[in-house]
Amino acid sequence: MSESASWGPPYLLYLGNAQDDLAAKTARGLAYWRPEWCVGQVRGPHCKTSVGLPDLDVGQAQAAGARTLLVGVANAGGVMDGDTVAAVLAAMEAGLHVASGLHQRLAEEPRIREAADRLGRVLFDARRPPALEVGKAVPRAGKRLLTVGTDCSVGKMYTTLALERELRLRNIAADFRATGQTGIFIAGGRGVPIDAVVADFISGGAEWVSPARDDGGWDLIEGQGSLFHPSFAGVSLGLLHGAQPHALVLCHEPTRQHMRGLPHYALPALEECLAANLQAARLTSPGVQVAGIAVDTSRLSREHAASLCSHVEKRFGLPCQDPVADGVARIADRLLELYPPA
Amino acid sequence: MSESASWGPPYLLYLGNAQDDLAAKTARGLAYWRPEWCVGQVRGPHCKTSVGLPDLDVGQAQAAGARTLLVGVANAGGVMDGDTVAAVLAAMEAGLHVASGLHQRLAEEPRIREAADRLGRVLFDARRPPALEVGKAVPRAGKRLLTVGTDCSVGKMYTTLALERELRLRNIAADFRATGQTGIFIAGGRGVPIDAVVADFISGGAEWVSPARDDGGWDLIEGQGSLFHPSFAGVSLGLLHGAQPHALVLCHEPTRQHMRGLPHYALPALEECLAANLQAARLTSPGVQVAGIAVDTSRLSREHAASLCSHVEKRFGLPCQDPVADGVARIADRLLELYPPA
Repeated sequence: MSESASWGPPYLLYLGNAQDDLAAKTARGLAYWRPEWCVGQVRGPHCKTSVGLPDLDVGQAQAAGARTLLVGVANAGGVMDGDTVAAVLAAMEAGLHVASGLHQRLAEEPRIREAADRLGRVLFDARRPPALEVGKAVPRAGKRLLTVGTDCSVGKMYTTLALERELRLRNIAADFRATGQTGIFIAGGRGVPIDAVVADFISGGAEWVSPARDDGGWDLIEGQGSLFHPSFAGVSLGLLHGAQPHALVLCHEPTRQHMRGLPHYALPALEECLAANLQAARLTSPGVQVAGIAVDTSRLSREHAASLCSHVEKRFGLPCQDPVADGVARIADRLLELYPPA
Repeated sequence: MSESASWGPPYLLYLGNAQDDLAAKTARGLAYWRPEWCVGQVRGPHCKTSVGLPDLDVGQAQAAGARTLLVGVANAGGVMDGDTVAAVLAAMEAGLHVASGLHQRLAEEPRIREAADRLGRVLFDARRPPALEVGKAVPRAGKRLLTVGTDCSVGKMYTTLALERELRLRNIAADFRATGQTGIFIAGGRGVPIDAVVADFISGGAEWVSPARDDGGWDLIEGQGSLFHPSFAGVSLGLLHGAQPHALVLCHEPTRQHMRGLPHYALPALEECLAANLQAARLTSPGVQVAGIAVDTSRLSREHAASLCSHVEKRFGLPCQDPVADGVARIADRLLELYPPA
């Protein structure tokens, strides 16, 4: 039985009874960005999705090297159901630690707390923020890029991770800075769940996750929400101010009919969204620049996608790419033109 | 001994060893806005301020009708010191309930929790938010005004309360909606400590505190922070979106040299601040209007104050008044011109 002292990869991804891809988006993000960390998936009898990994039970996963069961499924209300509790208990008995991105903390369930104590397993809750301070807004060393969006769930995390990969391929120091639960798992446990911090500490949380650095490298900060999403814009603004970004990348999903969850709110125009983000960002980063526009074209034909990106490029004079389909090489080119490596 | 089942006024105001007026601002707000609820003050041996009430010990206060000891002092870090704990325990022994605006919860101190359980006293923490949901941003009935500011601590609460008093004098239904600890005590315990909610729920908290109403009356919502304060702007923006304000009143303190706590940040110009607040407010309230500008002139001569207000009035075509020195009659006039009572 594994006796490793701390949680971490390799992961067994728990999908439970996820009814669609969205419910399993945390597991999907891990399987896409860190396949080398994922030994398999465990699904409930009513699960309607897959992340394409072998289906393993906890014993098989432990034998295959898994160290942690990652609860990578979103339940209604963020609370564990009975099946999830049973799966967590079985994983701990089989020797695994447990990490979760749910709102409900693992140790709030007495049976899980008891088993973890008895077996010496680590419980990690990605939505539990670190100890934070109020944002100080003091200029700090280092180069920082923040992804912003026309809406929630338009590819900010994927774009940020694609930029990390692209810059590292060019031998430029660059680190993804996670601000949501999926990103925190992809970053190996480090990050700040910015939507879960106390409101006074939003910009302080952004400062915490991207501290001063003097190696010439980039902090690539995962954006959240949108200045135009009336439920969450406060989070987006605090993150923008705390990030003190040198560069922004605007992310967009062109088939979105309305702001996520709000049928009575239209998406902003790209111009309006760029202008509002630049205006707000200048409060703490007067020289902020836009490095490009990232579009999720997965719901478009390849022809339509190419035509859209070309049109956006001409209109804004900025590189426009789909990070998943096309990569972000031209956005990275522009970033390095704006801020040449020393 | 009082055996009332719940906390509430009359209050005995605890000032502890407050070193200045700012440290006692919660007690001061109560004594100013709700003098009829305050039977006295209790001060420590090193207290350097007063709110002008009789100094009473807990026994005298209880005999004079006090029901609750109100911890109306801000300590460093928001934590209770030994003197405060001793005063709270003595008050409970004398028959009083206890209410606090500190970050640290009263029941986190084991001696306080034990005494409250044993004596049947209520402990109320104003900074503990109610159960909230994510903001829905659905248009709702009722009329709402929000105070906004060029900075923190520029008179937003005083302006909002002055408007409540003025509208009620005119027999117009109007209710102060509290978003900070002092305001919550002034409102008799109801309100949302908006800086203490989880970041995802800022706009939901604003919706909770100003629900739909159909009596033709006004919800007057206490603003917090400033869109131009880089530590707290996220709170201000979420509050602005959740409030769905029909009217804004901009608050300003003209001698402020820099943003509160941030010597490297200048205050915004009134024009810029008004424009940014209107632009952001239009997302959830497209017809938002400005009813006036409220200036704290307490640090100016009367002549200078009059000249400043007159100058601002001409420049913006908006009524400009000091709510404490001059009242808010002309701002209320403008509000009722913009939105005539039915």
